[in-house]
Amino acid sequence: MDVFIEPIGRLINEFSKLPGVGKKTAQRYAYKIIGMSDGEARAFAESIVECKRKVRYCNVCGNFTEDEVCEICKKRDGSTICVVKEPKDIIAMEKLHEFKGMYHVLHGVISPMDGVGPNDIRIKELLSRVQDGSVQEVIMATNPDVEGEATAMYIAKILKPLGVKVTRLAHGIPIGSELEYTDEVTLSRALSERKQI
Amino acid sequence: MDVFIEPIGRLINEFSKLPGVGKKTAQRYAYKIIGMSDGEARAFAESIVECKRKVRYCNVCGNFTEDEVCEICKKRDGSTICVVKEPKDIIAMEKLHEFKGMYHVLHGVISPMDGVGPNDIRIKELLSRVQDGSVQEVIMATNPDVEGEATAMYIAKILKPLGVKVTRLAHGIPIGSELEYTDEVTLSRALSERKQI
Repeated sequence: MDVFIEPIGRLINEFSKLPGVGKKTAQRYAYKIIGMSDGEARAFAESIVECKRKVRYCNVCGNFTEDEVCEICKKRDGSTICVVKEPKDIIAMEKLHEFKGMYHVLHGVISPMDGVGPNDIRIKELLSRVQDGSVQEVIMATNPDVEGEATAMYIAKILKPLGVKVTRLAHGIPIGSELEYTDEVTLSRALSERKQI
Repeated sequence: MDVFIEPIGRLINEFSKLPGVGKKTAQRYAYKIIGMSDGEARAFAESIVECKRKVRYCNVCGNFTEDEVCEICKKRDGSTICVVKEPKDIIAMEKLHEFKGMYHVLHGVISPMDGVGPNDIRIKELLSRVQDGSVQEVIMATNPDVEGEATAMYIAKILKPLGVKVTRLAHGIPIGSELEYTDEVTLSRALSERKQI
């Protein structure tokens, strides 16, 4: 990095911390910043600090919020809870404009390989929400990978004794894709979970 | 963007201003920032402001510097000047550790289509450096595209009467590539500029 002067080298270094950004991309970003007006660069920097300062987790669901409780928890029907791994999964669900219930963010999934056990994610919090009694259905929307599946099964097992309906998002062939190019695991899952028409 | 709360939406918006960054990538970057510690995020923001505040253009060559005159202009042999389009081209040249002369950054190239004429780039400054008399060779290292070529030809034409040697980086087949995959313009250029061995 000695070909760059210190402030540029430092900025490149900071940009390389972003996911998927290598030295070359970070360099392009840094040059873009240098090419900005002072006001634009300051606004950029401020938005980073502001975002860190203002954004916190909702006391109820664990989603990002500026208040104690997020907008979704304030307004929505609490009889259905959709359980997701991360706040960004809520964004994906909300884009549908279909789901009208509340969410619960686990902030992780059970993954013994990474040393993440059931007590390291927000399962206790989900349990106490369900124990409050008004919840009728819990939709497990963790990712369809090994950890996501295991977490969904684990949670389903401890929720069922509480008399709540636990469901899982359907897995199968994505709409618009072709059978020929569907991977074997997905196809096998689509076959075993086939529905009568 | 209404699915995001304001501070996150604003940060995503700022990140989308970086070259080649779309909404999805900007979103990933924003989540990375939220996941950082307060100190890390503040350091990131500061490096942006610091970079804008400290970095200025060298009075002699136009390269980025923290002082009046850049490190290269302070130390190097001024008898050879390498003319480049942008400061980042200096980085590419410096990585060779071969060129021992000084640079001159044009901060653009002549491009009538974009309304950039000879007076809009740092040609005057180059001329006055050459007129000082100590310059023996000017190496034109603008990009091998239409604008870069035209700019190199234009500058060569006005420098030659001053009795200075004007050269151009060689064009031809890149080392390690294959003839079969070399584009026609490059191959034609390599043929017309063939050298006796």
